[in-house]
Amino acid sequence: MAFTEFRTLDEKSLVEYIKATPALSDKIGNNFDDLKIKEVGDGNLNFVYIVVSPAGSFVIKQAIPYVRCIGESWPMTKERAYFEALALREHGRLCPENVPEVYHFDRTMSVIGMRYLEPPHIILRKGLIAGIEYPLLAEHISDYMAKTLYHTSLLYRTTTEHKHDVAEFCGNVELCRLTEQVVFSDPYKVSDFNRCTSPYLDHDAEAVREDDILKLEVAELKSKFCERAQALVHGDLHTGSVMVTRESTQVIDPEFAFYGPMGFDIGAFIGNLILAFYAQDGHADQGNDRKTYKEWILRTIKETWSLFYKKFTALWDEHKDGSGEAYLPGIYNKPELHQLVQRKFMQDLFHDTLGFGAAKMIRRIVGVAHVEDFESITDASKRAQCERPALNLAKMLLKERRNFQSIDEVVSAIQQLQ
Amino acid sequence: MAFTEFRTLDEKSLVEYIKATPALSDKIGNNFDDLKIKEVGDGNLNFVYIVVSPAGSFVIKQAIPYVRCIGESWPMTKERAYFEALALREHGRLCPENVPEVYHFDRTMSVIGMRYLEPPHIILRKGLIAGIEYPLLAEHISDYMAKTLYHTSLLYRTTTEHKHDVAEFCGNVELCRLTEQVVFSDPYKVSDFNRCTSPYLDHDAEAVREDDILKLEVAELKSKFCERAQALVHGDLHTGSVMVTRESTQVIDPEFAFYGPMGFDIGAFIGNLILAFYAQDGHADQGNDRKTYKEWILRTIKETWSLFYKKFTALWDEHKDGSGEAYLPGIYNKPELHQLVQRKFMQDLFHDTLGFGAAKMIRRIVGVAHVEDFESITDASKRAQCERPALNLAKMLLKERRNFQSIDEVVSAIQQLQ
Repeated sequence: MAFTEFRTLDEKSLVEYIKATPALSDKIGNNFDDLKIKEVGDGNLNFVYIVVSPAGSFVIKQAIPYVRCIGESWPMTKERAYFEALALREHGRLCPENVPEVYHFDRTMSVIGMRYLEPPHIILRKGLIAGIEYPLLAEHISDYMAKTLYHTSLLYRTTTEHKHDVAEFCGNVELCRLTEQVVFSDPYKVSDFNRCTSPYLDHDAEAVREDDILKLEVAELKSKFCERAQALVHGDLHTGSVMVTRESTQVIDPEFAFYGPMGFDIGAFIGNLILAFYAQDGHADQGNDRKTYKEWILRTIKETWSLFYKKFTALWDEHKDGSGEAYLPGIYNKPELHQLVQRKFMQDLFHDTLGFGAAKMIRRIVGVAHVEDFESITDASKRAQCERPALNLAKMLLKERRNFQSIDEVVSAIQQLQ
Repeated sequence: MAFTEFRTLDEKSLVEYIKATPALSDKIGNNFDDLKIKEVGDGNLNFVYIVVSPAGSFVIKQAIPYVRCIGESWPMTKERAYFEALALREHGRLCPENVPEVYHFDRTMSVIGMRYLEPPHIILRKGLIAGIEYPLLAEHISDYMAKTLYHTSLLYRTTTEHKHDVAEFCGNVELCRLTEQVVFSDPYKVSDFNRCTSPYLDHDAEAVREDDILKLEVAELKSKFCERAQALVHGDLHTGSVMVTRESTQVIDPEFAFYGPMGFDIGAFIGNLILAFYAQDGHADQGNDRKTYKEWILRTIKETWSLFYKKFTALWDEHKDGSGEAYLPGIYNKPELHQLVQRKFMQDLFHDTLGFGAAKMIRRIVGVAHVEDFESITDASKRAQCERPALNLAKMLLKERRNFQSIDEVVSAIQQLQ
């Protein structure tokens, strides 16, 4: 059986596919007798198979030409797998500790073969719902963000390298359009796709659609998202795109990757931590009031930005005489000027981060795809009580982001708005 | 003689080339007896031939793989002709009245065949030096800028169309790099290429290199130039890229075209008009003190922006329910919100225009390529007296651009700083 044109794999044809692909069959010692295959795609877009044998293991991810959870009525290019593989390899090269290795990519079949993140790895979002602390999370994710964003920006690279890669990732336009729709558009208008915890948040959702200043500000963020090719961003860096153990943090699923504003990634991660914070009261019970855990989340938000700031500027300092074309040493090497431009750059990035983070929060409360943090709170009234302050904080952050000078001020605002 | 690979044309081989190219030989009625050919490239980059016969005429522009005025020691991709032809055709489709028609393009030979802009067309810069008023200039150039910039932006187009063209023009990276170097870098550091009216402006040039706030601001503009794919800009829209009569305004030479910030084009044009204004005192003589002409230039600066504002927002109003994806009608159609986002957009664009315009002025006074407006003032002391206030105005505009609310305030600042 040859795989010279695309078809959707099932467990049976997957075995044939592995047999025909040395990069994969070698991983399991070419032994197909004790092969265990399990489909684990949680259903939104793709098929994901875990393949385990006594000799080794891997994951197979196949993109299909439509949105899996909707069906063929919502077409979605399977070429997204190409950009996912490209981003996994590029980010993996820059930060191998926090990105699973790609063993194999097949563009025709839209198949990626990659490292299986074995138990006890779980999706970070599930860990946050369960109230599990990850002491190295901020350390790891700030490492990932600093390394991937810095090295794919003009701070590190030449215009020639940059424009070459920008052009390549322009091809991932369908996924960019999906983000434009669900993050920057649908929540701000009447749309069949929107949902909210009804009837409790009906008025809150309507208030979002009627808030002119909010809509003015979200237009500016959308324009940055569409037009500003600042770095190779993951494009969907929420807490469902990160797998964790206490010791390990692995960033997966960069199928939305493109050259966009750095703040979109940092904001996605921090915004989803803030959502996790506000969901905690809905998960509290007599055995655990989650107060300590909420403190840990706030600490992690603070550390994520602080460590990112430290690591990103350290990379900048380290390579300031390198080939990056944004700030040429002949112009910016005077120490006080170097610090001045760095502070300005980081302040702008901070404000982008808050804006994009807030937009990502809003869309998870009044837009199409909600988050399990809130959805797992079965009592709708209680869920709405958690969601409302999260929404209000997000609206305020988006509109007033430029007034925030530090992550401490953001954490204070979160604490006050409960 | 076949032209299957690149070679530099001369007058003799050009005739052979025309004979072998029906799109060109048809234009002159296939009659080679009374053919007149004249090389008129003013020398920076390309060869330009005017071809005239009794039956018709055209211009042949050939890009060669180096900078003509320097020689083979400064290589420069001849692929620039491809992007020039692409931009001429796209801008010509959007604004045929102000862009010469392209009859023929040959990528192998880097040859463009296009309309010959017959006398009395002259380069606008030369007209400005001669003190000639062009009553329709602001009307025409604002038309060109409004139509080309609006229709190639996300205000009018879908993300899919936009990213496709952004990717294509990423290929024009060598010309973008040249701009980065000569506009945003060299004037702010010691560079062998820099020149100024020495010794008069030596300290002024040094002050530019020592001005930390100026360098901080120019970094922000450079980042926008490199990263923000807002519209298909001409990329070099100074007064040397415009040919005029009293009735006609034709924009030529878009070989620097790429997807960049709109303000780069508007600023280039306005900045060069400001340079022309400051040069006038150097051209005044007993017969003509140029006072009236200076008033006309200021009026043209004001009208260029005012008419651009009016036409650009009129196009936006006209198509606000169209397929442009930046401001979806479902979100922004409420009249007061539509006006709010438009005012915000135009204010940001105004500040970009002032910033880029100022950067283009600075580089013409202390950078590599100067302008004939000043260069034609032979008395160096007198020239420096014209250049200094222009430089000071540009530095102020670049640093304080966000404090300007209207073009009238800019005109007042110019009048005050003489």
